[in-house]
Amino acid sequence: MKQIFSSLVLVVAICLCQDNFLIAQDPLPSWHDSTTKQRLLEFVARISDKNSGDYVPVSERIAVFDNDGTLWCEQPFYTQLAFAVFQAQRLTEANPEIAKRELFKAVKAGDMKSIAKEGEKGIAELMMVTHAGMTTDQFNQSVRDWLKSAKHPKLQRSYLQCVYQPMLEVIKLLQQHQFKTYIVSGGGVDFMRVFSEECYGIPPEQVIGSTIKTTYEEREGQSVLVRQPELAFIDDKGGKPVGIHYFIGRRPIIAFGNSDGDYQMLRYVTDSKPSEERACLGVIVHHTDAEREFAYDRNSPIGKLDVALHEAPQRKWLVVDMKKDWKTVFVNNTEVKP
Amino acid sequence: MKQIFSSLVLVVAICLCQDNFLIAQDPLPSWHDSTTKQRLLEFVARISDKNSGDYVPVSERIAVFDNDGTLWCEQPFYTQLAFAVFQAQRLTEANPEIAKRELFKAVKAGDMKSIAKEGEKGIAELMMVTHAGMTTDQFNQSVRDWLKSAKHPKLQRSYLQCVYQPMLEVIKLLQQHQFKTYIVSGGGVDFMRVFSEECYGIPPEQVIGSTIKTTYEEREGQSVLVRQPELAFIDDKGGKPVGIHYFIGRRPIIAFGNSDGDYQMLRYVTDSKPSEERACLGVIVHHTDAEREFAYDRNSPIGKLDVALHEAPQRKWLVVDMKKDWKTVFVNNTEVKP
Repeated sequence: MKQIFSSLVLVVAICLCQDNFLIAQDPLPSWHDSTTKQRLLEFVARISDKNSGDYVPVSERIAVFDNDGTLWCEQPFYTQLAFAVFQAQRLTEANPEIAKRELFKAVKAGDMKSIAKEGEKGIAELMMVTHAGMTTDQFNQSVRDWLKSAKHPKLQRSYLQCVYQPMLEVIKLLQQHQFKTYIVSGGGVDFMRVFSEECYGIPPEQVIGSTIKTTYEEREGQSVLVRQPELAFIDDKGGKPVGIHYFIGRRPIIAFGNSDGDYQMLRYVTDSKPSEERACLGVIVHHTDAEREFAYDRNSPIGKLDVALHEAPQRKWLVVDMKKDWKTVFVNNTEVKP
Repeated sequence: MKQIFSSLVLVVAICLCQDNFLIAQDPLPSWHDSTTKQRLLEFVARISDKNSGDYVPVSERIAVFDNDGTLWCEQPFYTQLAFAVFQAQRLTEANPEIAKRELFKAVKAGDMKSIAKEGEKGIAELMMVTHAGMTTDQFNQSVRDWLKSAKHPKLQRSYLQCVYQPMLEVIKLLQQHQFKTYIVSGGGVDFMRVFSEECYGIPPEQVIGSTIKTTYEEREGQSVLVRQPELAFIDDKGGKPVGIHYFIGRRPIIAFGNSDGDYQMLRYVTDSKPSEERACLGVIVHHTDAEREFAYDRNSPIGKLDVALHEAPQRKWLVVDMKKDWKTVFVNNTEVKP
């Protein structure tokens, strides 16, 4: 019996050592050792430590991430727009009448500048004709099919390889500390859900995004959901805290964004009255690396970062300097496939 | 080394025995041994067994539960209506002008029959004046305060003690088999989220319900969400599959309901084309116990169960006979407090 006991102790000891070994490994190997990295690690350690005054119970460990520009590349145009243009091109091929209109002439030519000139109204029409009128299953399949061959126009790689490796490490670090990690994006929720689990390790039910109206129907004796050409919810700016409330119902304790579209979400996560101080952290990914990715902020039509950057110091938001803080930018794993 | 190894084998063996011991315990002790119970247990065992043709990966184990009449008592009126009447009574006390109107006279007298006579429009007004116009934090606090002292009019116990013990056991059984358990209810999502975790072990982010429009504002330098007197989403009938799609983004494999309001959800979860057969189960709680709870179905104004009951045999939905299948009805734990 004593023998068994001593062996058991040894087994436990080995397990503990392995645990320590895991902890000793750098959880953020793609990050340079900087105050940014230290503040991230320190926050996670502090809220996980039962002896810390900032300890947060597991059930309240909610992390929210913007997607475009925070988890993957959003320049020179949103990935979802590239998908919409591709789908619209197929529509114009099938329907010569539609191809006579200016917007669809530009679509046919793949002329993104002229498409952009059509403004929000043009983009909205493009989204509606390509994102509505089919069942949810059909839409998901069309996204999956497109992702198989589509390539980023400048980076010349699959869009799924335009994901930021350092951010994947942050997601994993938080998950290892029992966070529930959510995407909260202005992008279409169903578009993102096709690849969120495989790309980010975030399951579809933890993706919040802009939503198209969907209706229940019965077709050939089967229940289906049909996508309607009408927006049900826009998950951007003030809509982000609202989306968090609709879907999660409690305040996250850490938020990651990269543009003024994330300002209200960052405020919602980090605001606290002096009498009700709570552990929380806001993080902004600042695109400073024109060489490896893109450099933009105040004057960019896509991912404009102005107010949030200006207020970051007073609100103690952590600003990630992509050029200085990241050893590598894009995902290492070339095996990710749609 | 050999010694360590043999002890390790022993430790593993002990662990396995404990596991078997756990499995040997009845996971549904409040259920009579019946075909209903057997079918529930058999389904869970089948989809969890890697060697079964119906094995379902953990990520796809999603279970959805209606709330009113499925997880707790909904007679003689919905709990949330009792809350609304209580809040409206406080409003009429503070505002004598409003008290002159027929609807609020009935409210003041606590006359539920006259309130019901005001129809859907009256009920909707009552919901709006009591559920909107405050911040989300203020609303949550008002629900919490009310639950502390409110009692069910017939059962004379806290509403949180009107939860069905046999259903709590089903939730736990599914969670032990790594299901993500969701509430999908016509009731107000924020109302349910106040007690879902404590009552059912279902966290707020896994509660889907009818939603009031909420807006982001800044008040005294703090970001707040304010409830508006406008419905954003009705999570009932065809809205239930739509809500499941908005929030979860994939088809659950098991659904529990008790009324025709759950019919479309049951269809959505259990429909499958002959070529795409998948493991799934629909379950209806049939209220057959006038003595211990209430007996109602086809002719009840609340929780009407007609079409779903009629189609249950052809669709292989499991019908729980509350009187025959349940040893006990209400929760054993009298310690549950708001």
